Amino acid sequence: MDLAPDAFARECASRVVLDRIGDRWTVLVVAALKDGRLRFSQLRNRIEGVTPKVLTQTLRALERDGVLTREVFAEVPPRVEYELTELGRNLLTPIEAIRVWAEQHAATIVENRASFDA
Amino acid sequence: MDLAPDAFARECASRVVLDRIGDRWTVLVVAALKDGRLRFSQLRNRIEGVTPKVLTQTLRALERDGVLTREVFAEVPPRVEYELTELGRNLLTPIEAIRVWAEQHAATIVENRASFDA
Repeated sequence: MDLAPDAFARECASRVVLDRIGDRWTVLVVAALKDGRLRFSQLRNRIEGVTPKVLTQTLRALERDGVLTREVFAEVPPRVEYELTELGRNLLTPIEAIRVWAEQHAATIVENRASFDA
Repeated sequence: MDLAPDAFARECASRVVLDRIGDRWTVLVVAALKDGRLRFSQLRNRIEGVTPKVLTQTLRALERDGVLTREVFAEVPPRVEYELTELGRNLLTPIEAIRVWAEQHAATIVENRASFDA
């Protein structure tokens, strides 16, 4: 019996992790935090088109996973900052590989879809 | 004006590509085809828990994207084989990085979630 994690296996927890790290907003949040901590409003400006609700949900999920930390500063108005943990910085390598691949090949894939549909 | 693809930009096609390559089943199909062409039934056996409907949809979407080819052999019963294209083999590097990361860190993330919820 092989107890090593195996994403091809039905019950493997790595599948749930795949769903999380494969999410479009996860990729963009983690990539946005590459250079250091950001406030909620900075993340929202950096990631065009994300709604406050979806950004909040994504940040909460990543905090729960241990990928980032949320720090609240008792100011008026309160300041909230997000920062990658060691696990999150470790995730940057595969996330950046995915993001860069998507950017490099987006035009080709759009062309391929048009050909296929024609 | 910067015309380079930018996944942080609202209208960038790379976001649609991110959604496709981040999908759990895409990761597993592309990874399963790493060592060469497979028949539909072989893919279905390799990727535990995938339904025929979802596997068919995933394969069709990846064929449309130009990530794999579908070849039908006129036999009885008909044999259908799937194989990565050059674009698909190119995608293996980031996909495998994501899959391996998910397998390596699944246990930690499950623990982090339990701590967060407690």
